Amino acid sequence: MRKGEQTRAAILDAALELAARDGLEGLTIGGLAERMQMSKSGVFAHFGSREDLQIAVIQEYHRRFEEEVFLPSIREPRGLPRLAAMFARWVERHSREIASGCIYISGAVEYDDRPGPIRDELLQMVLAWKRALLRAARQAVDEGQLRSDTDCEQLVYEMRALVLALHHDARFLRVDDAIERTERAFERLMSAASAPLAQAA
Amino acid sequence: MRKGEQTRAAILDAALELAARDGLEGLTIGGLAERMQMSKSGVFAHFGSREDLQIAVIQEYHRRFEEEVFLPSIREPRGLPRLAAMFARWVERHSREIASGCIYISGAVEYDDRPGPIRDELLQMVLAWKRALLRAARQAVDEGQLRSDTDCEQLVYEMRALVLALHHDARFLRVDDAIERTERAFERLMSAASAPLAQAA
Repeated sequence: MRKGEQTRAAILDAALELAARDGLEGLTIGGLAERMQMSKSGVFAHFGSREDLQIAVIQEYHRRFEEEVFLPSIREPRGLPRLAAMFARWVERHSREIASGCIYISGAVEYDDRPGPIRDELLQMVLAWKRALLRAARQAVDEGQLRSDTDCEQLVYEMRALVLALHHDARFLRVDDAIERTERAFERLMSAASAPLAQAA
Repeated sequence: MRKGEQTRAAILDAALELAARDGLEGLTIGGLAERMQMSKSGVFAHFGSREDLQIAVIQEYHRRFEEEVFLPSIREPRGLPRLAAMFARWVERHSREIASGCIYISGAVEYDDRPGPIRDELLQMVLAWKRALLRAARQAVDEGQLRSDTDCEQLVYEMRALVLALHHDARFLRVDDAIERTERAFERLMSAASAPLAQAA
């Protein structure tokens, strides 16, 4: 049992790497077996089908995202400090992912018009993160740190846009100032939405 | 000759549709031949290789992009009117592409870590559009419509981020307010960068 769990975790680890590089659609039991120097039936023993494997990869990716980005951020005081921490850790994670790729972003392009359980799983994960950002933004309004007329949906839309641009420019255009530009835009976004009293303080 | 050109154009048209749906990597001579009810050798007669076909698709996509977005916009007065027209037509084109997909955006994900002539071609096209936006933004500064201390690179980065978000949210999340959010963000971006005199006028 212990050994089985270790093997499953090792397969999942390799699958995450392959999926980040070749996309979730590029992930095959055969390719993974070769990478792990296992038989295909050895991989099938841990993941019943290719689709089960793809879904397990999305869930593991999300677990790591939560562990690195979400969980440390919600230890910050609610409101602006928490929202800023979420954004900073998100950008930091992307800066580490420049070499490997982000399954949420590549997955959105792979599955935008391909319905089914993989699209549903991806969508659920992306929406969960969007909701977490929205909650933090609304708390910043409640705390009087952001203006009471702030359109939080709009704010979160623009934050997410900046991270998409960071990924695009760093991975595809390979420019070296995308992180800096994203951070600068976020600061301006926050400063424009800051409540007058919070600005004074 | 005339007939040959027509056939080539019809193949290219079908190839654009397939590439928007399945990605440039999903484009095969076999799939295209089936779609066109032609033999594979018939397709090969017009495009020497799969790679030639993929590059022809990118160039044709770019030609249409220029025709729909760039060329009508540069008829506007230089500066802010031209920059705003470029953005508005770009958003409009995306709103039509919600059903079909955008080869620049899906291509960026497909080829971000896959070097070669296809990546080079895509990159060249995306950079050409980025330079055109930058030129228009700098002219808006020269014309005194945007503040003289405007960081035009930053402005164009944020404009591009908004279009990436529009594509992501409309195609993947399937929300219906992405166009409106993108336009609202653009207006705020322009208003924050507007020169005081231009604001007064």
